[in-house]
Amino acid sequence: MEVKIMKNIMNENEQLAKENRTLFSQNGVVAVNIMASPGAGKTSIIQTIINCFRTNTNIAVIEGDIASTIDAEKIEKSGIPVIQINTCGGCHLDANVIREAYNSIDLKPKSPKGRKSLLLIENVGNLICPSSFDLGESLKIVIASVPEGHDKPFKYTSMFEAADAVILNKTDLLPYIDFDMNEFYKGVRALKPEIPIFEVSCRTCEGFDALTKWLEQYLI
Amino acid sequence: MEVKIMKNIMNENEQLAKENRTLFSQNGVVAVNIMASPGAGKTSIIQTIINCFRTNTNIAVIEGDIASTIDAEKIEKSGIPVIQINTCGGCHLDANVIREAYNSIDLKPKSPKGRKSLLLIENVGNLICPSSFDLGESLKIVIASVPEGHDKPFKYTSMFEAADAVILNKTDLLPYIDFDMNEFYKGVRALKPEIPIFEVSCRTCEGFDALTKWLEQYLI
Repeated sequence: MEVKIMKNIMNENEQLAKENRTLFSQNGVVAVNIMASPGAGKTSIIQTIINCFRTNTNIAVIEGDIASTIDAEKIEKSGIPVIQINTCGGCHLDANVIREAYNSIDLKPKSPKGRKSLLLIENVGNLICPSSFDLGESLKIVIASVPEGHDKPFKYTSMFEAADAVILNKTDLLPYIDFDMNEFYKGVRALKPEIPIFEVSCRTCEGFDALTKWLEQYLI
Repeated sequence: MEVKIMKNIMNENEQLAKENRTLFSQNGVVAVNIMASPGAGKTSIIQTIINCFRTNTNIAVIEGDIASTIDAEKIEKSGIPVIQINTCGGCHLDANVIREAYNSIDLKPKSPKGRKSLLLIENVGNLICPSSFDLGESLKIVIASVPEGHDKPFKYTSMFEAADAVILNKTDLLPYIDFDMNEFYKGVRALKPEIPIFEVSCRTCEGFDALTKWLEQYLI
């Protein structure tokens, strides 16, 4: 019985996600689902991506959090349209809340010069549950951070398996932490041999060239 | 329908947790449920607690992870009885798996000199879901870490509300991170005005005196 109902919920989400995917595609929107542990730097990375692309790309942000409007307020300061979703205890976003948020956000369907528009979705801080819920996004990015340790890909396999790209944030802390970069790469590549891994620091702004170049290919 | 079944699951867990609580109490076991984000330092703190109490207290450890035996192997090296639970995707431990693990672990019911025994339970790395599942534990400890940022108590309210104590780990990184200690305390104390907060660093071993003193009161 429980399995059946869980399946129904998942089927319903899959259907809505499929519709979202069509909707985004028809409107020239590249939707990026950004997932990570609490405090890995999701909002800071979104802010940096905004700064890199805002001159030639229409951007909007959906902020997912259990409670508070802290992250949406940060994004709002940059003048980019943003909607805060409070899940009120819920441990992930789903296709339904993304549809509602997208329908109420002011994201122009086409950027200047025929470029696509960019919808950045910050999922709830959780390295487990969000990986099971398709939002209809174009890309899934998983952010890991140096202080979390190099063993995360070995433990949170479904999250890293789901990703189209991995960002390793807070590389400025490498001198102060026992982080084995080879082990981290080994863990990620064991799950996805070809996946791009971007080493960045939001604090020093280093490492974003390769990330923006990778993202750019989906916007043209 | 979905609500009803969810309620059944929760009721079943509550019942098992109640039985666990009686079992632990009858056997003189203090069970501590340790919850945190991935990479906050749960295993390192468990290792430090083991070192502080092992001379006069019987200790056993239950390690919860989605996958891998990395953490259990670390504990095993210290010679303390340990059981690894792999949840295979599950985002939290529950009272049932704790019962099974406890029944198969070699934890003597009484420590020397009539002190209680200590069962350290490392929950799955997740700052959301584990807070909803009573394990029958005596104490819930939430570990936050400096690199996660000072805003976590404002965002992950149910986790901090559930806690009997908060450990703030990785204080050695304070010089390299924009962490507002006052804001962190404000966030925690807004939810639980009287809760003890222990600032520690597993890297430098600082700050554990107050934590062990607090824990000691439950073992005598």
